[in-house]
Amino acid sequence: MTVILKLGGSVITDKQRPETLDEEHLARAAAAIADYDGELVLVHGGGSFGHHHASEHGISSEAGSHDVAGAFAVHDAMRRLNDAVLAALQERDVPALPVHPLSAAARDGDGELSLSTPVETILSEGFVPTIQADVIAHTGAGVTVVSGDELVVELAEQLDAERVGLCAGVPGVFDEEGQVIDHIESFATVQAALGGSDATDVTGGMAAKIRALLDMDTPASVFGLDGLEGFLDGDSPGTRVG
Amino acid sequence: MTVILKLGGSVITDKQRPETLDEEHLARAAAAIADYDGELVLVHGGGSFGHHHASEHGISSEAGSHDVAGAFAVHDAMRRLNDAVLAALQERDVPALPVHPLSAAARDGDGELSLSTPVETILSEGFVPTIQADVIAHTGAGVTVVSGDELVVELAEQLDAERVGLCAGVPGVFDEEGQVIDHIESFATVQAALGGSDATDVTGGMAAKIRALLDMDTPASVFGLDGLEGFLDGDSPGTRVG
Repeated sequence: MTVILKLGGSVITDKQRPETLDEEHLARAAAAIADYDGELVLVHGGGSFGHHHASEHGISSEAGSHDVAGAFAVHDAMRRLNDAVLAALQERDVPALPVHPLSAAARDGDGELSLSTPVETILSEGFVPTIQADVIAHTGAGVTVVSGDELVVELAEQLDAERVGLCAGVPGVFDEEGQVIDHIESFATVQAALGGSDATDVTGGMAAKIRALLDMDTPASVFGLDGLEGFLDGDSPGTRVG
Repeated sequence: MTVILKLGGSVITDKQRPETLDEEHLARAAAAIADYDGELVLVHGGGSFGHHHASEHGISSEAGSHDVAGAFAVHDAMRRLNDAVLAALQERDVPALPVHPLSAAARDGDGELSLSTPVETILSEGFVPTIQADVIAHTGAGVTVVSGDELVVELAEQLDAERVGLCAGVPGVFDEEGQVIDHIESFATVQAALGGSDATDVTGGMAAKIRALLDMDTPASVFGLDGLEGFLDGDSPGTRVG
């Protein structure tokens, strides 16, 4: 059974500083992943690599662009982050190979995502597909952003994944008193508590994340880096969703 | 109607020297492409970028590898070449975006290629998809090479392309007297004349190219860089195949 793990952009980068890795966090995440024994699909967000360029060029999940320079700037920055993630994993003997949504996904005129990747074959051959948030072609809009969260949800369905983990910059989803919520079963119960994220995030922050996770059949957990080893060991650290 | 143009690795690189561009040839090709007005899909071969690493790691269209370092070395070298092609095009205002087969294709246990790209949406939004030869996951074999020629044939079918052009390191297909053959309608008539290529080529050289082109419904032309402008103008320089 396949586990999908998303490394949030706010975990592996310094979101306040353009194109700055959080090397220590990335190393800790890679070490935890290297200890995992099983079929694993990795997805990562944009952090200060993708979001910075996306904002600059006015590109989001909804706002598109036909400007090839802007489209390529976002894609290229995401590749640089993807390369850093791949390097951290390969150094620790994780057989990680890159998958770029720009080469594998598109949106139709209604914004509906279609994603057709060779992830199953990559997995079956013992590699770890490592998928970046990206820009993708969008009918009528040029390119728009596809977020890590969207990719996680789509892949969980396609792969009939066993578990989904979102390793975030926070230890879980906070309630209005700042306590980590143990379990979220519906959006209405947490709507008041979910504000936007505290740094530029063109993909909607925690509220969008929770809505998307609730739409999945696969159980999910949102946790911080301290919870990653536990999640990979089969525990449910942080907030269970769904 | 869509035209598919393959830039051979022997045109845009110096095949005798590892990872060496032929800057002048690439600039000439990019300038000709910049003058073209219509839906265009670009594919390029590996030349001294991909083939060098593929040979070193024993990877070909048939011989696979489960070694992630080898797989990534070939892919990464092809990306460097793809980046150089993209840069040459973007400099001349061609809205080129990369498509990587590793993210979009796989082979089954019989070696059969499946390729599912967002190329149609990329085209419809006015961009020029620029697709590299690559390594792809191959059921039971790890990764194997997918050649530019294979990609051309598959895309021509999927896109119901109007014309296919292969811009090669030679002005066309030579007969046994070293004259360019005007038209090839069957492989048997040219088999004797088709030797291997004169530099490392893990994907079979001219013979494999011609066999693949003859299998297509779309008419193809094989020509040298001097024929590129004519091909894009609608002429049939070099050798017509099919």
